[in-house]
Amino acid sequence: MTNTTGEIFKVTTFGSSHGKALGAIIDGCPSNLELNEEDIQIELNKRRPGTNNLTTSRNESDKVEILSGIFKGKTDGTPITAIVFNEDKSSEDYEYLKKKPRPSHGDFTWSSKYGNYDYYGGGRGSGRTTIGNVIGGTIAKKILSIYNIKVFSHVTQIGDVKAKKVDINLIEEHSKKNDVRCADNEAAKVMEEKILSLKEEGDSIGGIVEIIAIGVPTGLGEPVFGKLDGEIAKVLMNIGSVKGVEIGHGFKIAELTGKEANDEFHIEKNRVKTVTNKSGGILGGISNGMPIITRIAVKPTPSISTPQRTVDLEKMEDIEINIKGRHDPCICPRITTVAESTLSLVLLDFMLKGGFIPRKF
Amino acid sequence: MTNTTGEIFKVTTFGSSHGKALGAIIDGCPSNLELNEEDIQIELNKRRPGTNNLTTSRNESDKVEILSGIFKGKTDGTPITAIVFNEDKSSEDYEYLKKKPRPSHGDFTWSSKYGNYDYYGGGRGSGRTTIGNVIGGTIAKKILSIYNIKVFSHVTQIGDVKAKKVDINLIEEHSKKNDVRCADNEAAKVMEEKILSLKEEGDSIGGIVEIIAIGVPTGLGEPVFGKLDGEIAKVLMNIGSVKGVEIGHGFKIAELTGKEANDEFHIEKNRVKTVTNKSGGILGGISNGMPIITRIAVKPTPSISTPQRTVDLEKMEDIEINIKGRHDPCICPRITTVAESTLSLVLLDFMLKGGFIPRKF
Amino acid sequence: MTNTTGEIFKVTTFGSSHGKALGAIIDGCPSNLELNEEDIQIELNKRRPGTNNLTTSRNESDKVEILSGIFKGKTDGTPITAIVFNEDKSSEDYEYLKKKPRPSHGDFTWSSKYGNYDYYGGGRGSGRTTIGNVIGGTIAKKILSIYNIKVFSHVTQIGDVKAKKVDINLIEEHSKKNDVRCADNEAAKVMEEKILSLKEEGDSIGGIVEIIAIGVPTGLGEPVFGKLDGEIAKVLMNIGSVKGVEIGHGFKIAELTGKEANDEFHIEKNRVKTVTNKSGGILGGISNGMPIITRIAVKPTPSISTPQRTVDLEKMEDIEINIKGRHDPCICPRITTVAESTLSLVLLDFMLKGGFIPRKF
Amino acid sequence: MTNTTGEIFKVTTFGSSHGKALGAIIDGCPSNLELNEEDIQIELNKRRPGTNNLTTSRNESDKVEILSGIFKGKTDGTPITAIVFNEDKSSEDYEYLKKKPRPSHGDFTWSSKYGNYDYYGGGRGSGRTTIGNVIGGTIAKKILSIYNIKVFSHVTQIGDVKAKKVDINLIEEHSKKNDVRCADNEAAKVMEEKILSLKEEGDSIGGIVEIIAIGVPTGLGEPVFGKLDGEIAKVLMNIGSVKGVEIGHGFKIAELTGKEANDEFHIEKNRVKTVTNKSGGILGGISNGMPIITRIAVKPTPSISTPQRTVDLEKMEDIEINIKGRHDPCICPRITTVAESTLSLVLLDFMLKGGFIPRKF
Repeated sequence: MTNTTGEIFKVTTFGSSHGKALGAIIDGCPSNLELNEEDIQIELNKRRPGTNNLTTSRNESDKVEILSGIFKGKTDGTPITAIVFNEDKSSEDYEYLKKKPRPSHGDFTWSSKYGNYDYYGGGRGSGRTTIGNVIGGTIAKKILSIYNIKVFSHVTQIGDVKAKKVDINLIEEHSKKNDVRCADNEAAKVMEEKILSLKEEGDSIGGIVEIIAIGVPTGLGEPVFGKLDGEIAKVLMNIGSVKGVEIGHGFKIAELTGKEANDEFHIEKNRVKTVTNKSGGILGGISNGMPIITRIAVKPTPSISTPQRTVDLEKMEDIEINIKGRHDPCICPRITTVAESTLSLVLLDFMLKGGFIPRKF
Repeated sequence: MTNTTGEIFKVTTFGSSHGKALGAIIDGCPSNLELNEEDIQIELNKRRPGTNNLTTSRNESDKVEILSGIFKGKTDGTPITAIVFNEDKSSEDYEYLKKKPRPSHGDFTWSSKYGNYDYYGGGRGSGRTTIGNVIGGTIAKKILSIYNIKVFSHVTQIGDVKAKKVDINLIEEHSKKNDVRCADNEAAKVMEEKILSLKEEGDSIGGIVEIIAIGVPTGLGEPVFGKLDGEIAKVLMNIGSVKGVEIGHGFKIAELTGKEANDEFHIEKNRVKTVTNKSGGILGGISNGMPIITRIAVKPTPSISTPQRTVDLEKMEDIEINIKGRHDPCICPRITTVAESTLSLVLLDFMLKGGFIPRKF
Repeated sequence: MTNTTGEIFKVTTFGSSHGKALGAIIDGCPSNLELNEEDIQIELNKRRPGTNNLTTSRNESDKVEILSGIFKGKTDGTPITAIVFNEDKSSEDYEYLKKKPRPSHGDFTWSSKYGNYDYYGGGRGSGRTTIGNVIGGTIAKKILSIYNIKVFSHVTQIGDVKAKKVDINLIEEHSKKNDVRCADNEAAKVMEEKILSLKEEGDSIGGIVEIIAIGVPTGLGEPVFGKLDGEIAKVLMNIGSVKGVEIGHGFKIAELTGKEANDEFHIEKNRVKTVTNKSGGILGGISNGMPIITRIAVKPTPSISTPQRTVDLEKMEDIEINIKGRHDPCICPRITTVAESTLSLVLLDFMLKGGFIPRKF
Repeated sequence: MTNTTGEIFKVTTFGSSHGKALGAIIDGCPSNLELNEEDIQIELNKRRPGTNNLTTSRNESDKVEILSGIFKGKTDGTPITAIVFNEDKSSEDYEYLKKKPRPSHGDFTWSSKYGNYDYYGGGRGSGRTTIGNVIGGTIAKKILSIYNIKVFSHVTQIGDVKAKKVDINLIEEHSKKNDVRCADNEAAKVMEEKILSLKEEGDSIGGIVEIIAIGVPTGLGEPVFGKLDGEIAKVLMNIGSVKGVEIGHGFKIAELTGKEANDEFHIEKNRVKTVTNKSGGILGGISNGMPIITRIAVKPTPSISTPQRTVDLEKMEDIEINIKGRHDPCICPRITTVAESTLSLVLLDFMLKGGFIPRKF
């Protein structure tokens, strides 16, 4: 497996849905950064389940504990280990899943590959393992904020309900006003109703999340195989349930001509800016100083309560499965925190690689 | 810079549009593989410019020469170095570009980052540097074919012209019948007309390319941060002009419910298959044995002959630019070969990492 | 920092001498391996301090707890997290060291580099952090033993006391008979006396440890920059206090002629063997099937109770220092376990890289 | 294979003794550095064979050609490709070696591992492939010299002839005065005679080379698994024929007590220095600002003209072999250039990793 992301700011995550604990080791964090458990707890609380009726009913306090890497209140350059113990486990709910892969879940591929597969709540494939991303991402966000880089996200679509375009400066604030985390509060209501009605039916729904970073300097990214957009695409696609990643105009750019798609340059307050930002802040794999704009396509939660066809891997025969357990009817709202964290990891790593941030504060 | 891709089958590319030579070093190719220059030449010829009126008029024979890594007609485990010398350079066409970045090109970001920027034909940022990808990809394809894995691609959209869905088994053959490389030959005609008419106007157009791999075994991919789809997203996004990558249903999956989106399992000839393939062959980051289906959004060539606004980086003032030089009015047809090669690199690397292919034949 | 070693079998260690906990994450362990805490505890007990009068009086039970990576008694391919909580800390012993670097310790360089430096017991630079190596090494040894590869070590020199050459098949057994871990039990007595007498004087002593691996197949190692001996040299040199690494005849080979130094080949039971083994089991960077023999030079523990000259980093003036705390008068005996573990990590990683061991048992 | 060294300043070497060409790609060189072929040629000439009667009679001009990475006389951040074509090949001299491994050469292990083995002049295992190290090392040295870091080396022992200790500031100059590259010109004469007399007898001889870097700042090195001494040990051990690496006092430190071995600190011109330098400039894996001193044990050239026992790998029977071809009777003099280059690569990479050198000049 590859449980590490990043080259300088390296985050290694561990743990599974129903194991003893989950967490992350962060290696390469600049030293002399003030950091405590509370800093991390705030972000973890945002992805924590059970806080509203759009999420799974699993109730976890997700209390974080730092085991290493902090000396007298500050990072000391050594690896930061932070863990969260699992509390509300219902492993018996999953016992029936042994050798019966749930459709569109990783059960089949993971058990094929590794033989011994932890089928309790999706094991290591569970969304719960993104706690590690958030732990690392929180630290990354804290450092980025020192450099006036802000990373935020919002839900722009749930099923066929699309949010209206909201001014980039209002997105963060507006999206906090509803449980869907959509910056268009009108649309949010419709989205919420849609999610709840599908939850009622034992179904689930997909959506689109947009993640934005403002204040990113010109110069992040390493052509040719280490482009900023390439790395962003990778880490976001690596988040469970993501089936597509686009930058700037993304797939819509396919319909445009060069005249329509090009971002012309101009001088603004003695800095080079682009008039439009269809490129989403990245040109030739390197940030151009404009906001970085990326969107991910999130598939509907595959765990639905309708009977579905699957196979018995031991008997190698077709069977029907009824999935139990507790699940989010739509993971878009909670994935926002994970996606923000993950993008923050990438940006910080490139800031360090590019020498924009020292290794010691 | 990061000019290497892959972990076991490592491809390092070098060279620029108007430099002496371009090429690649392939480190980690299994030994005892029969390989000669002709093998590589065949694929290079597919991406070669100047072969029809949809491409740039730059005429390059792109003749490849192998400098190391082959002993008595077979690979010997040592690094394979293959180069192509540049022939038809018109560097003087680009002299005026010094310090005047072309809109939506990498000129601005690359020159900001590196100071000394080769502005001749886009330098190392030129599409021409994908010759390295094709050199490596050709070798990868040759090895994959031994394992009955086939990688092919086709153009599915140019501007607003969309191809009809074509049977997966016919795509490769049909897409060879036209210069657009679209499997829907009716649509191809319209696409070709569109491209030529925009070329006439000095404009360009974007599109979508789908890349497919069939015969991929179950088990490629390394969760959590080394997922197959994550790596695919990265390498495809790293190709110049790509602004989006999706797997399987991609962004359309956002509109579906769980019932609609899930791929149910069933047994077929004693093997586990999915009834549908909305997941595009990847579940939980690991291949599930179904065809791998991925699409990329390709932006219109930013080099257009209409006057555009840009800036003079020395004087820091707004100016107008008229781009000269020779360019493809639509890079989708030629990017197919590059995308196939690039996907092949990833698949081979995962085959090697997973132990599906020995290090010595 | 770089707290990870290995490419496939990756071990990331964390924690410091006086922090909450120390441990390791092992990513890339083959799945389906039976593993429990007891397996690890046995090896940890070998490096545990306080077990005889040659070691520091710090008393730690070093009880290991596995937090992730094991499902129903076996590895499941996910990262194995194992930790040990620190118990017997006397941080106050070290308070006086703030800004006063101990001679030949890492205090000066670490505090210069990271600013915020954990000076309690050497912090992360403490030998105590090799607990992580041993955790990973134990698992590596367990897997290697399945393939009949045995890794062991012994002290061959303490100060000027040199052990007699002992038959390679008796080394492991003989070296267990004394606290010095020397296979020559006569010499061991003299060594022990020397150590204890220097301990009395508040001084310490260096030595040489030989680490041997038998049963290693032909073919481990990756020329040109990934040679087996290169990697062994690196990981052994990375152990604190090691100032030299040699393979086979090592530095003595400098005095030989080609005739004297060459290992001739011959056939033995239909296998290629060398008549002698001055190469120490490695030719051209690749194992040749003969025993791998390597030695490390271990410096005397720099913490001695004699007054020494050092500097006050705040006042930038010369001062005298009297080191307190509890220390091993000679770390050779305890370093044997660490060195064995560390060599095992390398060998297992190369076995996995070379395809000698599957990724799933 | 692993033909790349370095993390930021990455050098990938390619080519074999009797193939078309040898060379290196340097990826990650800071941009805006003035660089031309002459810079590299000067160092290549130092390792070039055939310049005096201590070396092989193979006559190669080793003329370097830069294919990419330089724009208008300066590096532009893109990969620098530099090659040397082989000229004086006598492949027929080696035809008899097919399947007959030379004792203490890599023939046996390489052919076992890769199957298809280039046995002409040692193929990729030849010392000739260190041309790549020197190409990269030359650029590294040029950059280091801007920061007043000087890397040089000298032969300190040939067989049992040991050089007297020479003042560190005179070593570079003195060692240039003789073909042995020994700073003790008296000893050099004896060494030269010894080498020539053994050459006459068809034998060869080993030796020790010391490599020194002065002007290295405090702070290079990444504990715990990325220590400066660990990396130095690796890259030096990776040079063919090296069987041991030591830092500072090295193996002699095993005989010392803490009192004798410790380097006390004192203030000198407002900087922290050590009174002695038995640590060889590295403490806790990090440079301490004192000269870095390392030595390598070099084995005698295994190609000797005396008949030796070996095996026929096809018939699996014992045979006798008489090695032909042209060889250095002692590779110590020529290895000095390679070792200097290799150490320079490591130092530059750590300078870049530590932020001591910008990515753009």
